[in-house]
Parts: sequence; C-alpha cells; structure tokens
Amino acid sequence: MTDRLLALGHDTVVFDNFSTGHAQFLEEARQSPRLTIIRGDNLDPDALTAAMHGCDFVIHLAANADVRFGSLNPRRDFDQNTIATFHVLEAMRHNNIHQIAFSSTGSVYGEASIFPTPEDAPFPVQTSFYAASKLACEGLLGAYSEAYGFRVFIFRFVSILGERYTHGHVFDFVKSLRADPTVLRVLGNGKQRKSYLYVHDCIDAILLTINKAAGRINIFNLGTDEYCEVTDSIRLITQRMGVAPELQFAGGERGWVGDSPFIFLDCSRVRALGWQPRLTIGEGVLRTVDDLLSHPDLLERCP
Amino acid sequence: MTDRLLALGHDTVVFDNFSTGHAQFLEEARQSPRLTIIRGDNLDPDALTAAMHGCDFVIHLAANADVRFGSLNPRRDFDQNTIATFHVLEAMRHNNIHQIAFSSTGSVYGEASIFPTPEDAPFPVQTSFYAASKLACEGLLGAYSEAYGFRVFIFRFVSILGERYTHGHVFDFVKSLRADPTVLRVLGNGKQRKSYLYVHDCIDAILLTINKAAGRINIFNLGTDEYCEVTDSIRLITQRMGVAPELQFAGGERGWVGDSPFIFLDCSRVRALGWQPRLTIGEGVLRTVDDLLSHPDLLERCP
Repeated sequence: MTDRLLALGHDTVVFDNFSTGHAQFLEEARQSPRLTIIRGDNLDPDALTAAMHGCDFVIHLAANADVRFGSLNPRRDFDQNTIATFHVLEAMRHNNIHQIAFSSTGSVYGEASIFPTPEDAPFPVQTSFYAASKLACEGLLGAYSEAYGFRVFIFRFVSILGERYTHGHVFDFVKSLRADPTVLRVLGNGKQRKSYLYVHDCIDAILLTINKAAGRINIFNLGTDEYCEVTDSIRLITQRMGVAPELQFAGGERGWVGDSPFIFLDCSRVRALGWQPRLTIGEGVLRTVDDLLSHPDLLERCP
Repeated sequence: MTDRLLALGHDTVVFDNFSTGHAQFLEEARQSPRLTIIRGDNLDPDALTAAMHGCDFVIHLAANADVRFGSLNPRRDFDQNTIATFHVLEAMRHNNIHQIAFSSTGSVYGEASIFPTPEDAPFPVQTSFYAASKLACEGLLGAYSEAYGFRVFIFRFVSILGERYTHGHVFDFVKSLRADPTVLRVLGNGKQRKSYLYVHDCIDAILLTINKAAGRINIFNLGTDEYCEVTDSIRLITQRMGVAPELQFAGGERGWVGDSPFIFLDCSRVRALGWQPRLTIGEGVLRTVDDLLSHPDLLERCP
C-alpha cells in the first residue's frame, strides 16, 4: 500500500510497530522524499496523534491478524484491534481528519447462513475473538461517522495472499514442507472452504473504492468469486514445491476454535464500481509460494 | 432484579458503583441474609474477579446508559460498556463461571430497514456510541461462548420504564414540568416513534428466558408489540400531572446525534417462550410518572 501511495504521488506517513510487517519491505519506499516512517504503537495515543498531524486520510491496516490464537488470550485481539482502533479514531478527531479506510474481515459474518455472503447478510453471531474485535471497530466507525461526519470505508477482506506475506496457511505449509517434505499436519479435516484474494487486487479495490464510492459509510466485501478447499490449496503448494507429503489431518470441521468452515463473500458491490481481481485463488497461491521460496529469510524470521 | 432474585431464593451478590442506580433502592433487599453488596467498579478487574468468587451466573446490567451524550465524549461508552464488559467476561473466565445474561439494546439495529425489527435483521450500521459499545459486547459474548462454552443470553431492550427510574424522557419531562409547568422543551420534532417496556415485564422476560431458552447463544428482543410518538407520551404525562405546557420543539427528526427516529422490535421470539408484557406503553408511562411524583427526592438527586 505504501509503495502504491507513493507511486500515486501522495505524501505518506507510515506508523507501524513492525510486529507483523517487516521494515525491509519499505526499503524501496524509503528512497522517496514523500515518505515518513514512524516506529510507534497504536496503543500509544500520544504518539499516534502526533504522527497523524497534517494528514487528511487514514488507511488503518494495523491489527493482530493471528486469528486462530484468540482463545489462548482474548486480551490480544481486544487490545490490538478494538482499543487500538478506538485510539486511531480519537487521534483522527483530535487532528480534524475525517476520512478513514479500515481493514475489517469477512469473518464478521460468523458462520454465515447465505453464500456467497452479501454485506447486508442477517445480523451475525461472532465466533472468534478476532472477528468480534473487528466488528467492534466497525461499530465505532459508524458512530464516528454519524457523530462527526467521518467518511468511512470498511473493507471486509477474505484472507490475503501474495508478496510480503508473513502469516497464514500458505506460509505455514511452505515453512513446514521446507523443514520436512515427507509429512504435512493440517488443521481440521482439510475440507474447510475458504476464499483468498491477491494482495495487489486487494489494494486496487481499496484505492478504486475510495475514489468511486460516494456514501458517507461505505461497506464492501473484498474477495474473488470463488473459494477453494484447504486440500486444493495443499495440492497446488506441494506440486509447486515438488513434494508429496503424507497428510495428517487434525480432524473436525474447523481448523481452530471459532474458525469458520466456509467463507465465500458476495463481491458484486465492489465489482459494480468496475473492479475485478486479476488473479484467481490458485494463481494467488502459486505467486505466494514462489515469493516465499525466493525469500527463505522471511520464512525463518516469522513465527 | 435483586429483589426478584432474593424472592426466588437465590444467594445474590450485587456489584455496583452506584453511579446510576441508588443504594436506597436496596434498602429492603439489604435485610436478606442471602444478599452481599459490594461497592465496586467494572473497570477494576481485580475487585470484579474477587466479587464473582463462588457465583455461577452473572447478570450484567451495568452500563453507561446516557445514550444521547455519546458524541460529547466517545470514551465514556467505550470504557463503561465495551471495556467494562470485557472485564466482566474475563472475571467470569477466571472464576470458571459460564453463564451470563447481558443487557444489550434495540439501538444496535441502527436505523433499521424492517419494522418490527427481528433479531436476524440485516447487518446493521451503528449510529451511536452507545449502540456501538453494546454491539462490541455482543461480539465478545459470542466469542467467549464459542471459545469457552459460555451460555449467553443477550437481551436487546427497548427503553425501560417503571419504578426506580433514574434517567430517560419521562424523568426529564416530569422534572422539567415540576420546575416550570408552563413550558416543555422537546428534543427533535416530537414525532420520533419509540418503544418502551415496563421494568417488571422486562425482569419477567429475562428470568423466563434464562429458564426456558435452550441454546448456547440466546438472543432476544424485549419490548411490547406497540410504539408511541414522543408527543403521545407527553400527552399522558401532562394529563397525569394536570399541566398544559407550551411545547417547544428543537426540530429535526432525531432527538440527538445518533438517535434512531423509529424503534419497534419484533418480540415474537420471546413471546414464543410464553412471555407477554402485563403493561402497555401508556400504562408504563403513567406508572413511571406516579412513582417519580411520589419520590421527588429522586428527581432532585439525578442529573
């Protein structure tokens, strides 16, 4: 996103604690005189408020994105996502900034009853701390919009694939198979059906929506018009790596507590703005595998 | 609620900072050897955790309930409702308590598109900090239920009327008319359509639902099958008080920022359990007026 904003000619401030992304991803961007990088934490309201000084648009992508460990420590999603987002919104208010794009999640639909799931699906019940924390953020954005006229863009993402990928199933599988190509442990029964989106398609969608959506509160699903089973993804990964591991399934319909066994979003709303993804899920998986294999240092550095 | 629990023979612990309710409301209950009263704050997790020791069910009714001042200070609803509820749930987890009834609000539906509004209405957009904070709590309850098997009862209330009423439109109108019976200032245009429920009917519904609803996550609207305009309510109040004030309307469809001009909940789900309200909205308004007039000290003490 930073690279794209700079390429579009925007003065850009990155505020990041680099707990998920890596500073090395900004090596190229760092050459631009338009970029300011501030190492800081969204749980430090003063630093956050100072960092936003002079900005006119906030793209809030920071979060604890390790969905599956929520039940080990509910405080983490609550702090990193809900409280951090409250601080972001308060910092905007104090800086008189009234526009925000926010990375929510398709998992706010819980175990949806309609597939593909539209933005106005029936009032969902939350199943994970991650999704609950993002839902809380969405609610706050709505209230700030109503109270202070904020223009808000809420994006409910499927899982994102592609370059600079630091966590998620492709990461875990590639890392495991590099260490031991003979065996692969799989959470759940491998039948979980999930949707994925390639990171550049995701950024395209965000930037296009910000330019084209006309509402005060704009809520958009972002995904492809397809889904795949975990075992489909494993087949692509193992073929690309040239390995044939024995698959050991943990069993159960869900990969972890609160995991949704089927995520498939109706993205007709964003498509109606003229956006469409350039890569299929399969192409995105392969692109991610290739990138990880060409950056083994990242595989080693991440959890 | 405390009186009712004691009458049913339950050992009861009240944990309250008495910021909204008054200690004098517990005068009778205080005679019971089954009652323990702890003056404490939900923002003090240690005190909260200690207070719950030995309990097996939590009825969490504490909140900042002054909906209309949210935009003056977003932190208040966030702290008193969202963060406080997180502490309640964590305290339950540490005490191995797995059952909770929670007072949510019909305002989580925002500006609903369906009337009467059912529990599975389309995914709402929040319009007030109060409702956003309650939505965040609902999400947390869902996640705790999924992760730790909590049985949760979420009640989306309309506004509550009746004895021991400390804030809300009947309170404000009676207080204003006692001070000056010639003029009544009304927020909005008086056409706002709202629903109300008598406090004993509300408690009946909560206790009946806890006994009868069989799910792990139980979500119920609580209200009457009717609504009234603010001006209907004013007519009842002024007739009962024998006054004929000039009405001065602030104007606009909404009483305050984030106010929903129409709240009318579909309560067929709770009715199907065998509950029905005993008082109409009109009877509830009159009961509230009578109670306030016979306790002028309360009118003076509250904001």
